Amino acid sequence: MSEPTPADEHVLDLVGLAAYLRLRTFSLLAAQAAGAPDLDGAQRLARIAGRVVRHQEDLLALGEARGADAVALMSPFDGLLDAFEQRTPASTWWEGLLTGVVGHGVSGDLCRLLARGLSPGGADAVLPALADEEHEDDSATTLVRSAAAADPVLASRLALWGRRVVGESLSLAQELLGRSPALGELARAAARAAGVTDGAGAAVGSSADVTAWVLGELTAEHTRRMDRMGLAA
Amino acid sequence: MSEPTPADEHVLDLVGLAAYLRLRTFSLLAAQAAGAPDLDGAQRLARIAGRVVRHQEDLLALGEARGADAVALMSPFDGLLDAFEQRTPASTWWEGLLTGVVGHGVSGDLCRLLARGLSPGGADAVLPALADEEHEDDSATTLVRSAAAADPVLASRLALWGRRVVGESLSLAQELLGRSPALGELARAAARAAGVTDGAGAAVGSSADVTAWVLGELTAEHTRRMDRMGLAA
Repeated sequence: MSEPTPADEHVLDLVGLAAYLRLRTFSLLAAQAAGAPDLDGAQRLARIAGRVVRHQEDLLALGEARGADAVALMSPFDGLLDAFEQRTPASTWWEGLLTGVVGHGVSGDLCRLLARGLSPGGADAVLPALADEEHEDDSATTLVRSAAAADPVLASRLALWGRRVVGESLSLAQELLGRSPALGELARAAARAAGVTDGAGAAVGSSADVTAWVLGELTAEHTRRMDRMGLAA
Repeated sequence: MSEPTPADEHVLDLVGLAAYLRLRTFSLLAAQAAGAPDLDGAQRLARIAGRVVRHQEDLLALGEARGADAVALMSPFDGLLDAFEQRTPASTWWEGLLTGVVGHGVSGDLCRLLARGLSPGGADAVLPALADEEHEDDSATTLVRSAAAADPVLASRLALWGRRVVGESLSLAQELLGRSPALGELARAAARAAGVTDGAGAAVGSSADVTAWVLGELTAEHTRRMDRMGLAA
């Protein structure tokens, strides 16, 4: 077993954040299932939403094993996405789906990145429950990719929408790290574990440096995700 | 192994119906999760919706093992609930939840009843996937029961709403048996298997007799369900 680090104290903050984000992703994907243009889309989205809630329950079980109940874990984050959702009102079903893919993608990336601030033992305990539940052949990503490949006008609209959603997602991530000392400390520990240095070659010190690194990592992952969908990032 | 009966030819019709009904129940419960008054309600409803979609996937796997794909199985029933949903517009979150409990309850009871028209071998293959996914301690039923026990005004409003929803559910069941020869034949076989006789002591013959028996069974189960919630049926 590896030695716990000070950041390990914040593991439950991370679990609560991840569980809350997944609960909201679940609702978003389930709404897309209900509004899907056909049965095939409805079934795929329902499957994906079902997987999201199953993984969310794994996270909550981790918390419960540490004595924390589901509502207590998530309640510090209650309402976190309200402003995000108000600022990203999808005007088509495809936009709504992309909001789910991008929002869920960024939030998953953020949680996995923060987990890198835990000790190796702490990270090993949490990372399996934070794994991405996208499956190559039956995912929302695949749905978007096929639709975008078949319709260049849709592809360019979705590219534009993706930029809007990722912008809002990154603002939210930044706000969250500023507001939660526990998550801020995990981010700092993650940056140090990743060997990030400031301009002078020293380990990152300021919150601004840490935040800049986090946003850079999230943006890079977002670009890869948009590439997989055949959309310009 | 028991001998297949003529009704066994209709097993895929039953699987398709049950899968479609669960897909819609999933959407209804997920919408209740998204609109829940607090995190505890949101989490419970998301869990229940997740279980519904998991059981729905079991049904689809049964169909796929018989060479039928998900969309082909469900598409004969596409739109089946549109009129029902338009006629049961919940005006409060609790009404919406009860619509889910009652609608899901009646549709599950109907599917299990129709499965009794299959040969014992056929029924054994299908019934596990048709099992009710309500768990005693963490179910929508429990949520309604606690709320109704604490608030007599809510309890009487929900009792009224339950009557409206069950009325619409029974109409829909009747329409379905009239419109689908396969399901009508399963219902007739189920009535015979249950030893139902007409007024003269002969096995039920007319569609009207069969339908009357089905509606009576569904009503009896509904009454028990309302009792479990502490609501007047």
